[in-house]
Amino acid sequence: MVNDSFKSESEQMIKEENEDEDDDLVTPWNVTASSKKGVDYDKLIAKFGCYRITEDLISRFERITSQKAHPMLRRGLFFAHRDLSLILDRMEQKKPIFIYTGRGPSSGSLHLGHLIPFVFTKWLQDVFDVPLIIQITDDEKFLWKNHTLDEIKRMANENIKDIIACGFNPDTAFIFLDTEFMCPSFFTNILKIWKLVTLNQARSIFGFTGEDSMGKAAFPSIEAAPCFSSSFPLIFGGREDIPCIIPCAIDQDPYFRMCRDVAPRLKYLKPAMIYSSFLPALQGAQSKMAASDAMTCIYLNDTPKQIKNKINKYAFSGGRDTIEEHRKYGGNCDIDISYQFLRYFMEDDDELENIRKRYTGGELLSGELKAMAIKEVQRVMAELQQRRKKVTDEMVRSFMIPRKLKYDY
Amino acid sequence: MVNDSFKSESEQMIKEENEDEDDDLVTPWNVTASSKKGVDYDKLIAKFGCYRITEDLISRFERITSQKAHPMLRRGLFFAHRDLSLILDRMEQKKPIFIYTGRGPSSGSLHLGHLIPFVFTKWLQDVFDVPLIIQITDDEKFLWKNHTLDEIKRMANENIKDIIACGFNPDTAFIFLDTEFMCPSFFTNILKIWKLVTLNQARSIFGFTGEDSMGKAAFPSIEAAPCFSSSFPLIFGGREDIPCIIPCAIDQDPYFRMCRDVAPRLKYLKPAMIYSSFLPALQGAQSKMAASDAMTCIYLNDTPKQIKNKINKYAFSGGRDTIEEHRKYGGNCDIDISYQFLRYFMEDDDELENIRKRYTGGELLSGELKAMAIKEVQRVMAELQQRRKKVTDEMVRSFMIPRKLKYDY
Repeated sequence: MVNDSFKSESEQMIKEENEDEDDDLVTPWNVTASSKKGVDYDKLIAKFGCYRITEDLISRFERITSQKAHPMLRRGLFFAHRDLSLILDRMEQKKPIFIYTGRGPSSGSLHLGHLIPFVFTKWLQDVFDVPLIIQITDDEKFLWKNHTLDEIKRMANENIKDIIACGFNPDTAFIFLDTEFMCPSFFTNILKIWKLVTLNQARSIFGFTGEDSMGKAAFPSIEAAPCFSSSFPLIFGGREDIPCIIPCAIDQDPYFRMCRDVAPRLKYLKPAMIYSSFLPALQGAQSKMAASDAMTCIYLNDTPKQIKNKINKYAFSGGRDTIEEHRKYGGNCDIDISYQFLRYFMEDDDELENIRKRYTGGELLSGELKAMAIKEVQRVMAELQQRRKKVTDEMVRSFMIPRKLKYDY
Repeated sequence: MVNDSFKSESEQMIKEENEDEDDDLVTPWNVTASSKKGVDYDKLIAKFGCYRITEDLISRFERITSQKAHPMLRRGLFFAHRDLSLILDRMEQKKPIFIYTGRGPSSGSLHLGHLIPFVFTKWLQDVFDVPLIIQITDDEKFLWKNHTLDEIKRMANENIKDIIACGFNPDTAFIFLDTEFMCPSFFTNILKIWKLVTLNQARSIFGFTGEDSMGKAAFPSIEAAPCFSSSFPLIFGGREDIPCIIPCAIDQDPYFRMCRDVAPRLKYLKPAMIYSSFLPALQGAQSKMAASDAMTCIYLNDTPKQIKNKINKYAFSGGRDTIEEHRKYGGNCDIDISYQFLRYFMEDDDELENIRKRYTGGELLSGELKAMAIKEVQRVMAELQQRRKKVTDEMVRSFMIPRKLKYDY
């Protein structure tokens, strides 16, 4: 009943079931790489069936937006996409779009890995100047983890303050918790997606088993529904024809592949995506920063001293065992976490390239590289922390009121 | 993770998988009996693990409510229950309860089989004098059938008028469509139920397969959630400790068994149920009236002449082939649909018993019995139709506004 109209994106999904054992594991709930270099993103692109962001596409992005691409975009940290060109076409034609992203609530402060998509999203919103919708999946956290909804809402409230600290404009951004926003227009789209995906397909896309709860099998539609502008009649005046672009880490692709498959059958436009790689854990690129393991993360509320200690103590080094060897053979930037942090946060391309050369050539020692990374991470965190201090409960409420956003279309 | 705390009611569910092939098929989506006498309700009670309503329980009901039991209750048409005694305890102790029932939208007028639970519910509400909640599952219809939501909402609007024609008091009754009422409090209970039932359990309770949609597997929680008073904060002021009694046909038991299993784990009170048998199709008790087959049904908008013609033409007779045989051996009330209709609708017990004796004894002929059934059904339908004519769109709206109901607790 449903299979026949599923096209290539879903066929890609099926491949995942046959993955090799030595492949990286990348799902919305788990990211583990088999190599020290981290996830093999080329392989992942092939497996998921999305596309690498080419130099040409970045150039077109810069031409159309009249903006230099964000460092994370031009350095390939946001590296893959689906239909980014169609979004650029619409920008060129002055047709409306919106940005959609989200987060699952996390206990304590958000960490750097959580903040990356939001830092980039804030930039993307400035460049596109369109409405932004941020979903906080408290329902997902409740279904997957052993917390009460009240606990999760308290976490979410703190997380939202961290997110607001990225600098979003309350005139054009709407942040919502699933359990607080749930309403007829949102539910109707959830329902429409539910109808078009079978339990077998959900199992193949997300790996659910019979031991998983009914809720887990119901949830994907809840993350997919905000892709459709008709979920937000107050914001989009009931228009069903405004597509979104979703900046997020690539592990969320299964949700949006599924959403893209059902969109044409609902006469909706497919969501476009722009995917980031994972900010590596301090211990190395084989895993991403995980809030559940404090030693792997730098948190938004870490002090400059904590940042310094964590990077000095834990940041995996691509340097050699002795100074002599390092001088002779040079360091390995690919696996060096301090260098990876610089790639994310250092603004000056020439300086970054200079550091890469000097480290690879053995001129720059691990300790010196760490000191540079500490300085950059401290700078970024200090900026965020400054803004975070000013975020009030009142500001949180104002972002979360369902309302018309300042935007003409 | 979930199994260990599932108790006897769920163990009952498991039995269903092993049912004999010659058993009756009774699910929320299908009712077919293997015998002309209709469903074997004793067997069904044993299989579902609910309880027969005894004479003692009916006497206690009458004592506590100071009302003579409704004909459908004293004649065993509402014949089974779970925890009805606990509801009577609460009535005795002047503790609050509410009544919850519902319907899936149906194209065209509702038929007699649809109306039975509402006629009884109206009586129950008068007797208990407590809030009544009626769920219209437009989402279920959408997930199971090939209609647009707009079509379903149009059907629902007409169905709701038919329901209101049963005489409900707008001061104490709230009617809602799932896709219109969906809100945080309702969704939160859906979510809590979702978390506690695995896909395997859902398959065992409802018979879903991998080819069924995600939505079908998500739906049971949507029918179960209104059992909990916390789904309706406007009505119950946020109280979580008000239990409901659900009058409905016994095919809905799977939903409420599931709900009773999860209730204690959510620290909610279990819903109680009072179950009716199925109003047989005109053609005989092997199937129930089905809106999809006009020949099996008497509709609320049938004229007196149509009622007469349908009963004369289609109502299965328990009479003999010839008048001579009938006079000699008598008719069989158990399989005679006209007699069954009289059981549902004739108010005078003595008159009904007299008819039964005369028909069984061969004194009363099939045609005469049919004439009596026609008269009773015409009377009931005329009363409903009179009220139906007066139901306006404005009245529908007033029943459907989420609001505080007139009730002190």
